[in-house]
Amino acid sequence: MRNPLNSRIVDIEPSGIRKFFDIVSEMTDAISLGVGEPDFDTPWRVRDEAIYSLEQGRTFYTSNAGLKELKVEIAKYLVRRFELEYDPYEEMLITVGGSEAIDIALRAMLEPGDEVLIPQPSFVCYVPCTIMANGTPVTIDLKEENDFRLTAKELEEHITDKTKVIILPFPNNPTGAVLEKEELEAIAKVVIDHDLFVLSDEIYSELTYLDKHVSIASIPGMRERTVLINGFSKSHAMTGWRLGYACAPKIIIEQMLKIHQYAIMCAPTTSQYAAVTAIRDCDREVSDMREEYNDRRRYLMHRFKEMGVKCFEPFGAFYMFPSIKEFGMTSDEFATRLLKTKKVAVVPGTAFGACGEGFLRISYAYSLSNLKEALDRIEEFINELRAEQSGS
Amino acid sequence: MRNPLNSRIVDIEPSGIRKFFDIVSEMTDAISLGVGEPDFDTPWRVRDEAIYSLEQGRTFYTSNAGLKELKVEIAKYLVRRFELEYDPYEEMLITVGGSEAIDIALRAMLEPGDEVLIPQPSFVCYVPCTIMANGTPVTIDLKEENDFRLTAKELEEHITDKTKVIILPFPNNPTGAVLEKEELEAIAKVVIDHDLFVLSDEIYSELTYLDKHVSIASIPGMRERTVLINGFSKSHAMTGWRLGYACAPKIIIEQMLKIHQYAIMCAPTTSQYAAVTAIRDCDREVSDMREEYNDRRRYLMHRFKEMGVKCFEPFGAFYMFPSIKEFGMTSDEFATRLLKTKKVAVVPGTAFGACGEGFLRISYAYSLSNLKEALDRIEEFINELRAEQSGS
Repeated sequence: MRNPLNSRIVDIEPSGIRKFFDIVSEMTDAISLGVGEPDFDTPWRVRDEAIYSLEQGRTFYTSNAGLKELKVEIAKYLVRRFELEYDPYEEMLITVGGSEAIDIALRAMLEPGDEVLIPQPSFVCYVPCTIMANGTPVTIDLKEENDFRLTAKELEEHITDKTKVIILPFPNNPTGAVLEKEELEAIAKVVIDHDLFVLSDEIYSELTYLDKHVSIASIPGMRERTVLINGFSKSHAMTGWRLGYACAPKIIIEQMLKIHQYAIMCAPTTSQYAAVTAIRDCDREVSDMREEYNDRRRYLMHRFKEMGVKCFEPFGAFYMFPSIKEFGMTSDEFATRLLKTKKVAVVPGTAFGACGEGFLRISYAYSLSNLKEALDRIEEFINELRAEQSGS
Repeated sequence: MRNPLNSRIVDIEPSGIRKFFDIVSEMTDAISLGVGEPDFDTPWRVRDEAIYSLEQGRTFYTSNAGLKELKVEIAKYLVRRFELEYDPYEEMLITVGGSEAIDIALRAMLEPGDEVLIPQPSFVCYVPCTIMANGTPVTIDLKEENDFRLTAKELEEHITDKTKVIILPFPNNPTGAVLEKEELEAIAKVVIDHDLFVLSDEIYSELTYLDKHVSIASIPGMRERTVLINGFSKSHAMTGWRLGYACAPKIIIEQMLKIHQYAIMCAPTTSQYAAVTAIRDCDREVSDMREEYNDRRRYLMHRFKEMGVKCFEPFGAFYMFPSIKEFGMTSDEFATRLLKTKKVAVVPGTAFGACGEGFLRISYAYSLSNLKEALDRIEEFINELRAEQSGS
């Protein structure tokens, strides 16, 4: 029998995050700081709306692009929070999480061989989704000395004749880095000068701890060049609901809608009804969760500082990205040994790109008591490593 | 600014089904026989399980491949109903409806230029999904004189050196045609002789009205060549839940899982918990709905016969596919005039392939009282057309 498979797909690596969870799931007493999803249940008011919707028998398809009422509320929210104006009827599409939006945006935009610039460390899907859309991923290694921010200079250095799209994953998973308005303006200038497009993944936009998030789409001249991706998973603790959205110029949304119509049909109906409540009525819940994350963030900063572990201060998402270079191990070795000896799971920085070597992703989407126990164990581990090293 | 779009995507036609609904939605008094989804609410017991799941706070991601408990129940169901044995851990993937499964199966299997044989009339997504996966769609025009069944001879005639996959959309949307065991055996022989693979879309497998549905995967030698696609939308009236599944040999599922992991993450969590109840405990509800559809099917057959409208008897899905060739109009003209003068929406056969010209798709996923009113109006319309024609 011949080979049934596409060779480009076969060559894609499975996600490096999973490996550790397979070990964790077989351990008793293990503490995970590994997962990239909120530890909060979805706010009750949102679940209650979903229950009402099910009781009412709203179990049918919605229109392909999504519920009109939801799109209108998202449009209001984007104005209220980020000063972004999008037409809910022609410039917006409700998707199966931010994930689907990323996939179909790249499928709609890339011609075979188009280069996509992907700053790393970053979320695991950008490189494979680019490959699956016949594009060529070109990674930009972000630097610790810049607090893992993307600079206009770094961007410019990686542009070639084939560059078409740049992915902008800020606030960033796994580093927690954010980009501020002046940095975005400098990046926008390069994007416009080189006639590029931006896929801006702003799924963590509600989780910033210094200033309010700024979207690159709000920079003059960028709206027509940007596909904005956002969703409910992180802001509203709604990962399992699989609900996101894309906003973009009409000509791009039209093509994304065609892919979505044929490959997905529509986002889950109950999730869409519940999301109307989430985005209209839950600013308070979102803010409460943000404050809780911020407390944990400060606690972790304090603990790492006490331990003498080098870690830049992240102002977004719910991750720390401490350096473990002083211990002379790879990230994978460090994480494996930490898991085996102290039963604490963290993700090696290399899961998010080769330039993550020497770093760990530590999620603080865990309760303070969990974090305290995990950090105590990490401290023990580090003290033992240092003792070993000074002994040898 | 340069063109942001992929040219293959731009060239894909939007679905021809939508057009009529846009007109319907602006009409008062219009009756639609156009939609391809059950008119039943999801069984209460399934919704109740979803509500319980939400109350319990199960709002997180599941594993990428889907809830273990759900996969185990699906495996049991496939044995119980269709004598199909699949390993729930290695040969199964839970997807966002059957739609996503079709999309990612083609993405996992096709190399650029591989030909995919697509019998038509058939559901609107196969040709675009093939194009989006860089394949070349080759359509096979099914014939009225064969009751729109695919014959082994027709299949063989369309095979070239580039043929890799054949899509098998039975029970069929829009014709209601089914394939029986002997026909599947003849098709299987051709598939095996030519070393092809089958994408078998069996989403209507619970809706057959003569014999029990037979899956091509149960024919000896076919299991290793088949991607079986099914889901909850039609059988359990769960369209809005967006829940389907694919079963296939491990080497194919592994690659589909990789695409799914990066492009979707996981199917909606609430839907997955509810589906455990659907597939384990709702055989009775499924059977009740089937009987109700069958009553409507017989009613429509009777009415068309009375009117003297030519229509083969469909034994699957919930569609009739009557011929309107006697009226000397295109399907589109007929449907447009029927909608404008009698306010009844049906879908022109051409929405499902050029060979659907001269036919209409009439859905009986509507209550008998609705069907009666709609058929009265269609009868009036036809009588007027015949009077016109005999007058001219």
